[in-house]
Formats: sequence, C-alpha cells, structure tokens
Amino acid sequence: MAFIFLCSSLFLSAQNKEEITDQLKHIYKESLTSGKSYDWLDHLCNQIGGRLSGSLNAERAIQWANEELNSLPIDSVWLQPVMVPKWVRGTFEYANIESSPGNTINVNICALGGSIATPSMGIRSNVVEVKEMEDLARLGKEKIKGKIVFFNRPMQADLINTFDAYGGAVNQRYSGAAEAAKYGAVAVIVRSLNLRLDDYPHTGVMSYGDLPLQQRIPAAAISTNHAELLSSMLALNPKLRFFIKQNCKNYPEVKSYNVIAQIHGNQTPEKIILVGAHFDSWDLGDGAHDDGAGVVQSMEVLRLLTLNDFRPKNTIRVVLFANEENGLKGAQAYAEGVKNNKEKHLLALESDTGGFSPRGFSFDTSKKYYNRILSWKSYFEPYYIHLFDQKGSGADVNLLKGNALVLAGLRTDTQRYFIHHHSDRDTFDEINRRELEMGAATMAALVYLTDQLGLE
Amino acid sequence: MAFIFLCSSLFLSAQNKEEITDQLKHIYKESLTSGKSYDWLDHLCNQIGGRLSGSLNAERAIQWANEELNSLPIDSVWLQPVMVPKWVRGTFEYANIESSPGNTINVNICALGGSIATPSMGIRSNVVEVKEMEDLARLGKEKIKGKIVFFNRPMQADLINTFDAYGGAVNQRYSGAAEAAKYGAVAVIVRSLNLRLDDYPHTGVMSYGDLPLQQRIPAAAISTNHAELLSSMLALNPKLRFFIKQNCKNYPEVKSYNVIAQIHGNQTPEKIILVGAHFDSWDLGDGAHDDGAGVVQSMEVLRLLTLNDFRPKNTIRVVLFANEENGLKGAQAYAEGVKNNKEKHLLALESDTGGFSPRGFSFDTSKKYYNRILSWKSYFEPYYIHLFDQKGSGADVNLLKGNALVLAGLRTDTQRYFIHHHSDRDTFDEINRRELEMGAATMAALVYLTDQLGLE
Repeated sequence: MAFIFLCSSLFLSAQNKEEITDQLKHIYKESLTSGKSYDWLDHLCNQIGGRLSGSLNAERAIQWANEELNSLPIDSVWLQPVMVPKWVRGTFEYANIESSPGNTINVNICALGGSIATPSMGIRSNVVEVKEMEDLARLGKEKIKGKIVFFNRPMQADLINTFDAYGGAVNQRYSGAAEAAKYGAVAVIVRSLNLRLDDYPHTGVMSYGDLPLQQRIPAAAISTNHAELLSSMLALNPKLRFFIKQNCKNYPEVKSYNVIAQIHGNQTPEKIILVGAHFDSWDLGDGAHDDGAGVVQSMEVLRLLTLNDFRPKNTIRVVLFANEENGLKGAQAYAEGVKNNKEKHLLALESDTGGFSPRGFSFDTSKKYYNRILSWKSYFEPYYIHLFDQKGSGADVNLLKGNALVLAGLRTDTQRYFIHHHSDRDTFDEINRRELEMGAATMAALVYLTDQLGLE
Repeated sequence: MAFIFLCSSLFLSAQNKEEITDQLKHIYKESLTSGKSYDWLDHLCNQIGGRLSGSLNAERAIQWANEELNSLPIDSVWLQPVMVPKWVRGTFEYANIESSPGNTINVNICALGGSIATPSMGIRSNVVEVKEMEDLARLGKEKIKGKIVFFNRPMQADLINTFDAYGGAVNQRYSGAAEAAKYGAVAVIVRSLNLRLDDYPHTGVMSYGDLPLQQRIPAAAISTNHAELLSSMLALNPKLRFFIKQNCKNYPEVKSYNVIAQIHGNQTPEKIILVGAHFDSWDLGDGAHDDGAGVVQSMEVLRLLTLNDFRPKNTIRVVLFANEENGLKGAQAYAEGVKNNKEKHLLALESDTGGFSPRGFSFDTSKKYYNRILSWKSYFEPYYIHLFDQKGSGADVNLLKGNALVLAGLRTDTQRYFIHHHSDRDTFDEINRRELEMGAATMAALVYLTDQLGLE
C-alpha cells in the first residue's frame, strides 16, 4: 500500500496538491458555515415528515426536491417514473399480555412493513419464545401450531460496527413470519432491532417469500423493554396469552419517481459521477437519519460543486431513489435505465448510514480503483476521515454493479444509529448540524477528487 | 513510520499477538455488555449532580467514589488532601437589554467562574461591542470608560476540531474582564463558547490576573442567541443600555481531595500507569460530559483490568483530580507528591473531551515512545480507533511533564462537545451509553498494551 501511495502521488505536481488541498478546505468551510443541508432537512422532516413509498408525503417530498433542485444553478432536473408498493399501517396497533383472564398489561408494538392485518377482533393466543430460526424446527408443528411465535434474539452488543449487529439479527424481522407460518403459527412478534432498552418499536420490511396468501400471518415488532417484559413473564407463566390487533394493508402498486438532477461535465460529460440516497422512509418518525440526511447531503454535494462557477470535468448527478425500504424499485428502475442507455458511471456514492459524524467510505470496486482512491487518503486526514474499507456500498447503488467503476457508501459513526432506525425516534431533533454538514462535505470531497484526478 | 512499525512488530511472537488481540476483544466486550461506567455516571450525575470545587456536591462525589472504588478488588484507595478555591454563583443572574427607557428584553446570562458580583442593585450602562482584544486599545479609554464591554467573537465554525475553535475564542472569557477593566469598563459580557445558536449561557473560568481588587469588574456569559440579538440591536441603536445583576462570590480556599486508587504491579510495582480525569465540574448541568464521563471511564479501566484475576506487571493507578476547572489545584498537589516521592510514571492518560465516540489519543512524549505506541496502531483498528497525534495530553496530567514517559489524552468525536460544555445542557441524558463504554475500553486497551508490551 505504501508503495502504491508514493507512486500515485507523483502524478500530482506540488502545486496541484496544494490547489486540491485548498479546494477541499473550501468545500468543508462552505458546508460548515453556509451549508444548506440542515435547513433542507428541517423542511423535509418538519414540513413534510415520514415519506413511505406510495404515500401522499412521498409525493409531496418529490415535488419539494424537484423545486429545490431546480433552484440550483445546474443543468437539468427530471423525474424518472417507477411503480412502487403501497403499504399502509392503518390505525395504530394494539397489543397486551394477559397473564391471567382479564389481567392485562399493554405493550408497544408496530406492524412490520408488508405485514397483513389481524382479524378485526385481533388474535389472542399463547406464545412460544425462540432465539434462532432453527428453534422452529426443533419445536416443530406440535408446539407452534396455533401460537404466536416471539422472536427475541437481541442485537449483539459487543460488535463494534452496529450494522454488523443488525445483520446478525434482521432475519427474525425479514423472514420470521414466513418461517413461523410453515409451522402453523398464527402471528409473530419480533424484538425491535435496537441495541438499547427503550419503549419504541422499530418497523422495517418483512417478506412472506412465496407463501400462499391464505397462509400468511401478521407480524409486528415489540419494543425492547416490552420484549424483556414478555420474556420474563413467559418464564414465570408459559401459559400467558398475547393479544395483537393491527389493520395494516397492502394495496396495488402506485406510480412514484426517482428525482434526478445533474451538472454536465465540461470535458467528458458522458462519464457520470453519481451521489445519492433513498428518498422514501418509514412512516414512524420523520426519516431524518434514514435517509433524509443522505438526501440533503446528496443535494448539498451538487450545490457545493456549483459554487464559484466551478465546472466539473465529468457529469455530476444526484439521484434520490424511490422505495429503498420496501422494494428497491427506484434503484431497479434507475439501473435498468443506465443499462438501456449504456451510461457509464465512474463512481456511484450513496449516503445511508445516518447523519452522524462521517468516518469514511466503504467501497465495492476492483483493486486498481481501490488503490487509486487510497492514494487520496491523506487529503482526508485534516477532516478525521480515516475509514476506507471494502465492505460493500449502498443498497441502491449496489444495483449498478457492472455499470460503474466504483460503488461506494459513506460510513458514519454508527453507535447511535439503531436508537433511531425505523422508529418514532428517527426525528430531525436527533440530527446534529455539524455532523450532517461534515458528511455532506466528505461526500463532496470524494466526488471532487474523482472528478479532478480521475480514477485511471 | 512504516519501517519502524515493521521492526517493532518483530518483538511480538505470533502467539503473543493473537493473545493480545483476544485480550483487547475481551476488554471491549466486557465494557459494552457488562460495563459499569454508564450506571456509575447515572449515579454521579442524577444522584449527586454538578460538583464545583468547594461545594457540598464535590464532597459527596468524593465520598461516593471512595466507596465505589473500595468495592473493587484492588489494593488501595486513598484521598490526597488539597486546598481548592471556593466560588459560589449565588442566586441566578439577571440581565436585560433596554432599547429605550422602560422598554426591556430579558436575556440569558450566567456569571463566569471567579467573577465578582455586581452591586446589589445591578449595573446598567451603554455597551461597546468588540471582536478582538486589540479592539480595546483601538477604542481607548475614551470610548470604553463607564461602559459594558461585549466580547462577541464567535467560535470559528470551519475548524474541524472544535477544540481548536474553542482555543481561538476562549481568551475573551478568560482575560476579557481584566483587559476591559484597564480601559475603565464597568462589566463585561462574553458570547458563550458554543458553536450553535441556542439559549444556554456557558460559564467557565476567568481571571483578573494581577488587577487590584478595587479595579475588578463583573463578568458574565450571554447565550449565543442573545449575543446575536444584542449585536443586532446595537447596530440599530448604539445608545441602548444593558442591565446585569449577579451576586456570585469568592470565598477562602477549602479542603478537598484527589481520589486515588490502584492495583499493584506484580513485576515492577514501582512503575505506575495512571488513568485519570477531573472530578470537579461546573455548577450548571450535572457535568456529565465534563468530566463525569472521564471519571467513570477511568474507574472502569481499573475494573476491567481486575477481571479474571488479571494482574498487571506495573501498578495501575486511577486519579480523580480535584479542581481542574478553576485552579488545577488537584493536579498540582498530585504532581508535587510524585516529585517528592520520586515516583516513576510510564504513562499518564487523561479523559477530558466528553463521553463521545473515541477516535484515538493525543500524546506528549518523545519520538521514541511515540513510535513505540504507533507500532500498536493495528490493534486498535477493529475498534475504529485511528487518531494518534502529538497535540498535547490533558490539563491535569500535563503537570507530570518530566515525571512520566508518556502523557496522553483520550480524543473523542468533538462535533457535539460545545453544545454541552459548561452549561445547563451538560447532563446525563446527553450521554450515549455505547459511546461512553467504547471510550472506557479504548483507554483500558492503551493501558493494557503499555503494561504488557512495555514502552522500551
């Protein structure tokens, strides 16, 4: 690595290095002193709010972004149509634990995205607690049939990167219902994917796989505090009953849009550098960290790179992807378009790890381009950007594999992320302005370096 | 650097490296899954609270730490007496802007630590706004005499390390009153050292230098929102008057203590590895970040390094220093004792940058020892610890210069720090459990490496 670093540096004259260093300084300064990301996010979260695919709020958000991007001194803004799923939570969910007839304790749940409703009178049944998917086979139909399966494996707290802990627990939420239904369960309750104990249930996408309609069962998340409570009460009284009522519903797909905006390159406009984020969020909270932060940071990159009449060599494009949370339909439509139009992307960079202090990037690329980017590492040092790993990129840009030289994801400090993720706690007031702005500048810096120095 | 790194690595056999890697994993796991730092901090902040030097709360905190440390399986705990200043805020401060006679707007201020009171009827006078200390000489006695000087230079938002921004603005708070008094000012108002606009005034130590008692003038901080307001109103009406009333008071010094605890080394007990923090805080808020976090992290280091009957080679000592905020008397007493007893410290590590995600350390040491520590950098990589710079250590351990081979300070993510610092916003609910625990583990890791691998 050290050797490669020294070699690539030779391509830059001393003067160039200084100039680039100055430009990055300018980018960070502008973001931290006159940035627009925070005010944009304030509007998106507090004037519009959560923007689940297919909702009225999602439409309003798309319209707003279209207008805001049109107000920037850029070349074009357009909407790419895409059909997205429409799932609606309905009236709020209700659940309780019945320790003995008539003796109930209310608990906090929320339907998982894509779940069916319970019968209108709800479901009351005994509960089987499991930790692993394999527990289902071990217990078998005999012990599961007619019961509510309670998935209660906590996220692993000693994993330093909390996304690793998420990855180790998310199968309960995504596949729990489909698996439990095979053994005759009547509903599933999943411990919220939250590393701390609190009262907020966390939603998120689930799938019934290829389970026939009539075999599907309702699925909900329970707050971590109430998961602990239910588990304790079950230990004392395995005969207790759980009541769950929810009236969420899946509707036919509706039309939505990717919002796209760009500045044309003045040397090789056919080469595209993409920055993006997903525009949809869950309906709980206002989607500030997931992924409002990424949205306004991507917009800010475009704004920062149009200041002082700067013209990029390559086309810089922002894509606000529809429907990442429960379908990836926006990313699919965009990738399809890229393929059909034979567009060439140099870099596709996504921000989807919350508006926290940026630590660096993760890349999905060849050794050659990875080493090229590593040779820029010292430019990032003054900004405490140190992480340049190769552990994937982002859910949306990932679909551009084969049509982009470098896929990348911004990586932030993840310790607080799962307090907020997919819950009522993902709100604008939990965003720190400087951290958000540092993230935008860090993305702009990578885009600037890629544009000016090139990947070859 | 690369060369040195490779050489030092050779001293460790593969087996040792693996063992050390495992031990660090264990340290982090223990801190994140069974750590005591968060519960300790909860007690310190919510059952005791702010603990300004000389206050009853400071005494209660010392007693509590003494008891808690005595409950650990360590060799000794003792209190080192030290005389500390006693300054008391008195009843809350009051201030307003009088735009025309009888037409007033209340503004949020707090007395600076060490300031004298106003006369009991308060002070009402015209205001001179300045940005730089040099503005005083430029304006001269003629324009300052009889007026209130308003220091309104904001912290520089484009400095990435917010402590650099603090360093660039703190002279207004520390020396503003002494300097303005020389030109006949009757009081000073200082813009709070906060990077964002909000309603909380931030206190902190100030000094009159060698100004005679009768020339001293009251000094207070004003919230950033109200600093902006005052500045705007002054621009419209330079004749407006400001009213300030505060009844804080300096008392004679009182007795307090450094709290010290240690495990004896089983190979070279005469060599000491110190971890510490300052135990005093300001009276606003409950001193959670400054420096309750450092206190409980230091205690946690000792706890972590006594698990599973681990015995260190060298003596591991925790020092909770009295009176860092307004006198450094605890650090002075400790350093004096070290000198008198000819104690040898290998490492003295302080945590005083808040309970945020740890990023690394700053060192004050020779090139030799710095390179030695750099050779351990890869051990820290799994924990996202990347910062190993040479920009000082900590206010307390700094006094051990000449009696310690390595002085060091834990360095955290600083973006949020000055929201809280010295204000009502420095409270336990602003602490993230995982971030605090990561910091404790990171300190323990450096102590463990220093102990097991040695600095030579």
